[in-house]
Amino acid sequence: MNKPGITIRLPDWLERFMSGPPPVFPEREDRMRLVIELSRLNVRYGSGGPFGAAVFDSCGVLIATGINMVASSQCSLLHAEVVALASAQKVLGRYDIGDGGKLQYDLFASTEPCAMCFGAIPWSGVSGLICGARDEDVRGIGFEEGAKSVDWVSYLNQRGISVVRDMLRFEAVAVLQEYAAAGGLLYNSGN
Amino acid sequence: MNKPGITIRLPDWLERFMSGPPPVFPEREDRMRLVIELSRLNVRYGSGGPFGAAVFDSCGVLIATGINMVASSQCSLLHAEVVALASAQKVLGRYDIGDGGKLQYDLFASTEPCAMCFGAIPWSGVSGLICGARDEDVRGIGFEEGAKSVDWVSYLNQRGISVVRDMLRFEAVAVLQEYAAAGGLLYNSGN
Repeated sequence: MNKPGITIRLPDWLERFMSGPPPVFPEREDRMRLVIELSRLNVRYGSGGPFGAAVFDSCGVLIATGINMVASSQCSLLHAEVVALASAQKVLGRYDIGDGGKLQYDLFASTEPCAMCFGAIPWSGVSGLICGARDEDVRGIGFEEGAKSVDWVSYLNQRGISVVRDMLRFEAVAVLQEYAAAGGLLYNSGN
Repeated sequence: MNKPGITIRLPDWLERFMSGPPPVFPEREDRMRLVIELSRLNVRYGSGGPFGAAVFDSCGVLIATGINMVASSQCSLLHAEVVALASAQKVLGRYDIGDGGKLQYDLFASTEPCAMCFGAIPWSGVSGLICGARDEDVRGIGFEEGAKSVDWVSYLNQRGISVVRDMLRFEAVAVLQEYAAAGGLLYNSGN
């Protein structure tokens, strides 16, 4: 049996993207533009599905980025949100990103979360979720997003997590459509 | 900014546990006994919360194990089921454990899945889920398991994943109670 232990290597293009001092994005729409750009680059570099995410602090300092790496890493857990949250926890050195609610961090994602990523968010300690494309946009290109309750926004709000939807939705959808038009892999789509 | 990339190192006691040729557990209850034992050892060694999981093939060959490593790895994603699924995918070399439904693998877990792990299961390619303790047993010691739809079993069945509940439930609950009695950490419990 292989020895246990898992190493997630992010692609070189993302490492280059993240080199240097942490960039600051004072405008929230610019933070969304970044994660949409990550989703686009992920498709163009062939390193995964059309999804990007990032964690920012309340001033807009970029803490960590994430891209979908399911096929490239042969690991179904590695959705963009999961990679961004795990990377942020590594950078900050704690599993509770918000440190017991004392600090404010937001997760930006190019699309709304699937059932797994929805479940991951309250465990992570972020206090805000900002999404681009909608669930139905992702389903529209063939992904099966799982059984997320229809009142998922209310649930996150009850857990103290604010939710903003539809930020630059059409720009985010354009990447999904680019992926679909190119015949991108619909891994474990349930079809 | 730290370079991206995440390494999950499993604890030494688990590495020792997994050394040698893959063991075989022909009886399903023995597979459950293993994951309950993993949950107990995880508490006793202080390496995480009271949760264990493992992936077996249809003959009972142990493919990969998982334990909760949230606090020890400072990563909120590392529930036992996530670790077991990611480890199995590494061992098998594919993100779809069942290889498009051609092969049968089961996830055994010492407790029913939280919302995140529930969402992760259909993406993973396993075709069976077997659980020990119930959701309410986990909530009973203070963990907030998230918003999982009440018909989660039906949903998994619809996705072609069989579900068995309450296997050796009382043995699994005994570990939860041991953890609670010892004042175990309730990370991100929502309290």
